[in-house]
Amino acid sequence: RWKRSVYQLLWKHMIVYGIVFISLSILYKHLLNETGRKNFRVIAEHCTGYSRSINLMIMLGFFTSTAMQRLFTMQTTIPGTGSNDHRTICAVAALVVDFMFQISLSATKKTISGSVCVGKCRCYCLLTEEERNVLEDPHKTDPTTPRPLVVIDWMLLLLKETFLQNRFFMDFNYLKNVDILMAYKKSCGNTIKFANQNISPALVQAVILAVYCFGCVTVMARTFAKEEEAPTSHALIAYVPLMPAMQFFIYFSWLCFGKAAVDPFGDDEDDINVKDLVKSHIENAKRLKDLYNRQLSDVFPALPQREYNDSAQL
Amino acid sequence: RWKRSVYQLLWKHMIVYGIVFISLSILYKHLLNETGRKNFRVIAEHCTGYSRSINLMIMLGFFTSTAMQRLFTMQTTIPGTGSNDHRTICAVAALVVDFMFQISLSATKKTISGSVCVGKCRCYCLLTEEERNVLEDPHKTDPTTPRPLVVIDWMLLLLKETFLQNRFFMDFNYLKNVDILMAYKKSCGNTIKFANQNISPALVQAVILAVYCFGCVTVMARTFAKEEEAPTSHALIAYVPLMPAMQFFIYFSWLCFGKAAVDPFGDDEDDINVKDLVKSHIENAKRLKDLYNRQLSDVFPALPQREYNDSAQL
Amino acid sequence: RWKRSVYQLLWKHMIVYGIVFISLSILYKHLLNETGRKNFRVIAEHCTGYSRSINLMIMLGFFTSTAMQRLFTMQTTIPGTGSNDHRTICAVAALVVDFMFQISLSATKKTISGSVCVGKCRCYCLLTEEERNVLEDPHKTDPTTPRPLVVIDWMLLLLKETFLQNRFFMDFNYLKNVDILMAYKKSCGNTIKFANQNISPALVQAVILAVYCFGCVTVMARTFAKEEEAPTSHALIAYVPLMPAMQFFIYFSWLCFGKAAVDPFGDDEDDINVKDLVKSHIENAKRLKDLYNRQLSDVFPALPQREYNDSAQL
Amino acid sequence: RWKRSVYQLLWKHMIVYGIVFISLSILYKHLLNETGRKNFRVIAEHCTGYSRSINLMIMLGFFTSTAMQRLFTMQTTIPGTGSNDHRTICAVAALVVDFMFQISLSATKKTISGSVCVGKCRCYCLLTEEERNVLEDPHKTDPTTPRPLVVIDWMLLLLKETFLQNRFFMDFNYLKNVDILMAYKKSCGNTIKFANQNISPALVQAVILAVYCFGCVTVMARTFAKEEEAPTSHALIAYVPLMPAMQFFIYFSWLCFGKAAVDPFGDDEDDINVKDLVKSHIENAKRLKDLYNRQLSDVFPALPQREYNDSAQL
Amino acid sequence: RWKRSVYQLLWKHMIVYGIVFISLSILYKHLLNETGRKNFRVIAEHCTGYSRSINLMIMLGFFTSTAMQRLFTMQTTIPGTGSNDHRTICAVAALVVDFMFQISLSATKKTISGSVCVGKCRCYCLLTEEERNVLEDPHKTDPTTPRPLVVIDWMLLLLKETFLQNRFFMDFNYLKNVDILMAYKKSCGNTIKFANQNISPALVQAVILAVYCFGCVTVMARTFAKEEEAPTSHALIAYVPLMPAMQFFIYFSWLCFGKAAVDPFGDDEDDINVKDLVKSHIENAKRLKDLYNRQLSDVFPALPQREYNDSAQL
Repeated sequence: RWKRSVYQLLWKHMIVYGIVFISLSILYKHLLNETGRKNFRVIAEHCTGYSRSINLMIMLGFFTSTAMQRLFTMQTTIPGTGSNDHRTICAVAALVVDFMFQISLSATKKTISGSVCVGKCRCYCLLTEEERNVLEDPHKTDPTTPRPLVVIDWMLLLLKETFLQNRFFMDFNYLKNVDILMAYKKSCGNTIKFANQNISPALVQAVILAVYCFGCVTVMARTFAKEEEAPTSHALIAYVPLMPAMQFFIYFSWLCFGKAAVDPFGDDEDDINVKDLVKSHIENAKRLKDLYNRQLSDVFPALPQREYNDSAQL
Repeated sequence: RWKRSVYQLLWKHMIVYGIVFISLSILYKHLLNETGRKNFRVIAEHCTGYSRSINLMIMLGFFTSTAMQRLFTMQTTIPGTGSNDHRTICAVAALVVDFMFQISLSATKKTISGSVCVGKCRCYCLLTEEERNVLEDPHKTDPTTPRPLVVIDWMLLLLKETFLQNRFFMDFNYLKNVDILMAYKKSCGNTIKFANQNISPALVQAVILAVYCFGCVTVMARTFAKEEEAPTSHALIAYVPLMPAMQFFIYFSWLCFGKAAVDPFGDDEDDINVKDLVKSHIENAKRLKDLYNRQLSDVFPALPQREYNDSAQL
Repeated sequence: RWKRSVYQLLWKHMIVYGIVFISLSILYKHLLNETGRKNFRVIAEHCTGYSRSINLMIMLGFFTSTAMQRLFTMQTTIPGTGSNDHRTICAVAALVVDFMFQISLSATKKTISGSVCVGKCRCYCLLTEEERNVLEDPHKTDPTTPRPLVVIDWMLLLLKETFLQNRFFMDFNYLKNVDILMAYKKSCGNTIKFANQNISPALVQAVILAVYCFGCVTVMARTFAKEEEAPTSHALIAYVPLMPAMQFFIYFSWLCFGKAAVDPFGDDEDDINVKDLVKSHIENAKRLKDLYNRQLSDVFPALPQREYNDSAQL
Repeated sequence: RWKRSVYQLLWKHMIVYGIVFISLSILYKHLLNETGRKNFRVIAEHCTGYSRSINLMIMLGFFTSTAMQRLFTMQTTIPGTGSNDHRTICAVAALVVDFMFQISLSATKKTISGSVCVGKCRCYCLLTEEERNVLEDPHKTDPTTPRPLVVIDWMLLLLKETFLQNRFFMDFNYLKNVDILMAYKKSCGNTIKFANQNISPALVQAVILAVYCFGCVTVMARTFAKEEEAPTSHALIAYVPLMPAMQFFIYFSWLCFGKAAVDPFGDDEDDINVKDLVKSHIENAKRLKDLYNRQLSDVFPALPQREYNDSAQL
Repeated sequence: RWKRSVYQLLWKHMIVYGIVFISLSILYKHLLNETGRKNFRVIAEHCTGYSRSINLMIMLGFFTSTAMQRLFTMQTTIPGTGSNDHRTICAVAALVVDFMFQISLSATKKTISGSVCVGKCRCYCLLTEEERNVLEDPHKTDPTTPRPLVVIDWMLLLLKETFLQNRFFMDFNYLKNVDILMAYKKSCGNTIKFANQNISPALVQAVILAVYCFGCVTVMARTFAKEEEAPTSHALIAYVPLMPAMQFFIYFSWLCFGKAAVDPFGDDEDDINVKDLVKSHIENAKRLKDLYNRQLSDVFPALPQREYNDSAQL
């Protein structure tokens, strides 16, 4: 229950906030002389005035909901291998899937940092020795061309050759396969676009800055009651900053969700797990390769149609 | 009228809110001594100040409307069997539909808890003995593969065999059927994505926490009139918390709708009824199986075209 | 100009609001004794405080804009017959259209109440005697199957038979027609979904309740000036409730538009007129039936191509 | 720079606002006696209180952004001829385009008033004498049928005849052309829907009314300083209504953009220019007619392929 | 880190804001006499009142989020060459791509000013001498026709001729190519529409004006404490305008992102780099031209299939 909870996300900030608030209260009550307390009061009231007039929540609301909508759109368009490979009925299937990891990875390379090396190794294992040589040999492959495009080119050549050798059930299949390959490329391209042309970092910076400023303002802001006859309550208010912490908590948590939605390839629990995605692609590839060589009768040996078919073939 | 009404949703919270509010009023008026009442007043005024400055409603508004938009999108993309099966003109139809319950169920398994066992049993009844064996036998089916994908594989094999045996009206039908199957798979996948990669639970937690905090603040917040000459009104205000309850009511109801939109597979009246969905799939499957073997003349024996056709065939 | 104007929508509420407000003013000024006036003042000030802190407008804004976006989406996806029938080049066209009224009607049956009987009658007139018998005979049609699905089944059978009798210009036409029929069914299904899985009635209830509460609060809320030397102005403010009425007017009108967007099949001027929709479907069906039997030369007897064609045919 | 600027849009209202504000200031300072000034003060303070509590901006924000989103959606779906005609490879092209003006015009007829006559004339010029007769003759064309549908019918007949006479390069072209024609019809229909089932006029009315009321309130609202020792500043505030005008300016300009987005076929500079649209359609039609009869070698006489082709043909 | 940061965007405005604020503080404290200070105080308090009642943030929020949503939509629909050219299997490919730069450029010509000349030159280099002559010769090309449409016409003629000469693998390829070309044209057209029918400049003007006005109001607005016993704090508040600057910072930065989203073809770091886009198009064209003439065996000389194919061909 601790994982993926909002407490895990915010406890550090909340503790720092509480400590600073209580320190300021102690400073005011016990350490400052009369002049210092007057100065403190003036600044605190100045802060109080502003803590209520800043329309930060509206800005945060629009920011986070815009970021979330982009994320949801992206989630539904992220390429899966499933819709792609079942139809590549010729033996291309396994190879195609292998190279696709390349694309997926290079799409996320810029946003993930730690897991790149691992991922890269695993992908290179999927390549044969020869393929790797071609990819890395500057004489055979123009080094300025993006790697995934090279792989797409190989696949196009493969499909063309398969077509020229008449390996498709129907001629129409060739066009279908090229269509699917192009759709996959576009889908990968959109994921790359999402990662690269994302919400401007300056906007994220501005929102973060504003929220931290707001935190500083609320930590300072306090009202000073005229009547000094209720010391218990006043001590409670001064040393248990429930209300201002709650205010800050709302802003800060909302900011966290916005930031998480802006960068979905990170290491948080809610983020898209790139390694798992790659793993499931590998497993899909193996499954599809198997499927290509199987018959329905391998799975269900005693199908009623079978007899009929056998007799029809005779 | 009680069912699906907002009163049913909120009455428990409203009663608790009222009791706490009135208890605090009694505490203040009759139980506390002079010092206690002063302390009470200070805290109440502190709460009043914050109850107006917390921009909770904006956060709630964006949260609930974002959750609702996701839900509406999901509702229109949830797979129905209709668009799928009418065209599976060969005998595959009924079998295909049977297995689809599997997919639908596993898609929602994580969110529904109570109805899983029931649903699973019913689905297994749809499977033949042999199919169940294959699914559960670790030698025949890789246990790490998701069950629905196994069924999709079977269907792909079936379609391939049907094509190879030349059972389609037209060759083009084979591609159409594979397309429809893949579209159905993608549609199921999107429903699973919706259930798994939903709005972060931490966000839901944060919003709930904020609303409950707000409730505590408003239940404490009260203003103390200087003039003590209108005891009736003051008693009314103190013991009939209409206004603060209404404030809390707005926030809390809005939160409820947001929560309901986040988790549409629950047991509420407005939620998607998974059991009914499965039932209607079963009925559709039966209807389509019947349809495959029927002729227009079975329904309308005396169609005018009939004679013409008969004469043309002679 | 009176029709479809906001005045027509709101005048009743505005008059009631004005009468209550003025009655309360008279009560305060002329009927209450000193103690009563004090009590009145306390309650009025209590209300004033809350009338400004309730974030009702934000809730209303999100509610109405969410409802409107759903409505706009629905409007663009509501099925028209046009895109459907032009291509059903065989004689199926007219029959198909006839039955479609069934679907449209049953889709909206739950939301329209008064016009159902009329509509049903008109639709049944479109059915032949035999069709009606089949639909209503429990032996021929399973009574639990939804009626529109029965009609869709008939159409599928018709298309299959037409295909088997080789009545299409091209084989490909058969698939096209099935596609169009399925798309039409899905489109009807979405309209039904919109009507059934609409915004939760509890949410509508909550919003309505909140707005009426707000109205009660503002009708009571008033400020009492200290200086009693400007009787004319004070009378004006007390007896001409322009400002609070305007406040309530904004909230209430916004609520009205939200409610109208939630239920677009009602009797308002802006609502979708189901009867007119059915009428235009009937006319379209007739027009298309005529079109099927016409030649371009029937409309333009003296086309230049004609001669060329005639000579080519010789 | 004056054109399409916000100043052009708002200067009239701003001047009226300024004059009224200054007149009221003069009235208060120089024309009223002591009783009048007291009354004025009471009303002004009453207005000030309400000018801050009316949540008009939220209503306006949702209204304008909803209207703009609808407009943007419409802009991307408004039919262009380009994607349509290039493929009508037979001689139908020019005729088809001609009639399309009809549709476009009738789609916008209800919203444009002044330019209808001009547009209609120009369109009728595009029709031949015979076509116009058929359209206007009640014996040949049912007068209740919408004119554009008649033209669509003609085109369908034309395509059918072209197909029956085997004028298409490929049979498949016929279906493509019908598809494109239907898509064009649907696209026109959506534009008509946008114009007819637009945001309810009552909603626009309500928003306009609210903004004007708000203007009246702010023009009256003013605060009266206690200290009378700063006559210059007070005069400045009374006679140079910068602040309230700015407040009103924000509301009013936002209203203007909302209104403009609701009705995009008007005479504003930002509106869709229907006349230019029709003109560009005419030019496109001419260009496409020319293109149909041209060869690549007409444009580039010395293409290298040419020789090869000539030799291949020999 | 300085690039693309929010500080780079805002530092100029922030410095000007600070200087003006401090100057006004000095003016008040040291330069004005008693009357002047009274006047200053009155105006400052007037500004303070308005600085809190202007609902600017809501306007800004809707403005920026609307602009961003449009931008995101545009980013995903901007035409890439990839999905287009792979399939133009005949030699048309390179030529097609060349001309497409024309379209891309003319689409953005109106928004980019400095880089037009450069881009135009580079594009003209891609054209052969003859092509340029045809484009610029008023006798051969109607000067009123948009240049990109001329190029599209050439491509259509090319495709038609290729089809007539039977150069496609399959007949169906011709239709596919025309489809892709039309989709590309539509996609370019949408980008042009985005640039031309963008958010109204008057709206941008209004928002900018409102933010600058708000800046002026906040720079003037200040509260004057009654107690003069805390000179340090008061000096701090008067000379270190952290709070009002932060307020202005939020508004101004939000405005900047809105403006950037309205005009995405500018010179900012986040904007779409038109020159890079053109460069990548050129490189793609070269790569595809190479690909057309290559075989899979050129890349992988020792493929296992090869032997099988060779033996099959024998």
